[in-house]
Amino acid sequence: MGDWKKSAVVLLSGGMDSATALAAAGRDGFACHALSFDYGQRHGRLELAAAKKVARKAGVVAHRIVRIDLSAHGGFGHSALTDDIAVPKDRPASADIPVTYVPARNTIFLSLALGWAEVLGSFDIYIGINAIDYSGYPDCRPEYVGAFERLANLATAAAVEGKGKFKIHAPLVKMSKAEIIRLGMELGVDYSLTRSCYDPAGEGLSCGHCDACRLRLAGFAQAGVKDPIKYKA
Amino acid sequence: MGDWKKSAVVLLSGGMDSATALAAAGRDGFACHALSFDYGQRHGRLELAAAKKVARKAGVVAHRIVRIDLSAHGGFGHSALTDDIAVPKDRPASADIPVTYVPARNTIFLSLALGWAEVLGSFDIYIGINAIDYSGYPDCRPEYVGAFERLANLATAAAVEGKGKFKIHAPLVKMSKAEIIRLGMELGVDYSLTRSCYDPAGEGLSCGHCDACRLRLAGFAQAGVKDPIKYKA
Repeated sequence: MGDWKKSAVVLLSGGMDSATALAAAGRDGFACHALSFDYGQRHGRLELAAAKKVARKAGVVAHRIVRIDLSAHGGFGHSALTDDIAVPKDRPASADIPVTYVPARNTIFLSLALGWAEVLGSFDIYIGINAIDYSGYPDCRPEYVGAFERLANLATAAAVEGKGKFKIHAPLVKMSKAEIIRLGMELGVDYSLTRSCYDPAGEGLSCGHCDACRLRLAGFAQAGVKDPIKYKA
Repeated sequence: MGDWKKSAVVLLSGGMDSATALAAAGRDGFACHALSFDYGQRHGRLELAAAKKVARKAGVVAHRIVRIDLSAHGGFGHSALTDDIAVPKDRPASADIPVTYVPARNTIFLSLALGWAEVLGSFDIYIGINAIDYSGYPDCRPEYVGAFERLANLATAAAVEGKGKFKIHAPLVKMSKAEIIRLGMELGVDYSLTRSCYDPAGEGLSCGHCDACRLRLAGFAQAGVKDPIKYKA
């Protein structure tokens, strides 16, 4: 079994960060199982279509899309990503957590990744969060990742029975957007397949003005690379 | 607003422990929002019917049932609770984690409770786990509860912005089954509405031989109270 690889579960949104995290998991020698969520995000159709393309291109072993309604309709919300709240455009720099924050989102996603990992016999979970060029979400910080890892090792039969120790890999957490893009280019990520825009309008075109578009555009500019996706004029 | 109450989210399975935890939350002065899961459990129809009756009787403010498929069919599993694996009967005492263990279940449930709590502006979550007379699941231990509470306070905008501090209440965690039953009787829990059996067969009748039935029956015996539900002859 010379080609045997350990498995990892990789959270994959369809955005540039998770596409890069997936490539990093491949670089680290893992057989990747991509996990995406149809959580009622208004930009979901485009985001999930991007996730599928990225997963296929990366040659993942499996790509699972789990449906869990986190919108106000599903009893969760209210976030500009899931509900009828305007996505902020050209938002001034601020320490506030923006209206695009979805309550407990990464905790919910990581919990389901943990469940899948345990079933697969995997102890490695990748998440493309970033605490430098980011929107200010609390569940994107290194101390959050550490707390989840500690929880995972108390929560599961696999860890408690000593079969292994879970590691939550957040390879991008301390990188700038430009550094992420340079890493992704090195690892052969095709950023033309990814989509970052929060705005459900505009169909295939990204708005260029929401937090996600602006961080992405600034990153590509700083990396000296042309962003290959299309923006509204 | 003399009748204003703080809100709590209470995980409610339909079993005797969560019914007692719900009563404890009421005793503690909370307006209770019950949260149940249709997670592909084979005994789900009966379990959720019980949860509905318990919630109604307790006068909860809201009762939400979230659908999330944790069975092998949904890409999770394999557990005797969700998949075609025999529920063990008259299992000898053992330190092993049994096949009824569902990977990461309480972590997934608490994550979704956390998301709902944050939306409600609540900082209190109740879970009826118990580490004394229990099946040996790792996510039922006090250290697990502490780790989740720590995570919750790092994960959420509400906590990070200083609006409050999340508390995961596990009022039964160090009680024996008999003590739980005595507490429930004191608080007016109607145990005839609850259901503990893991076995999907037998329709309205509990099997009396799975871990859940045996722990329940031993608890009622020890408390000197007749269990009001019906068992197979």
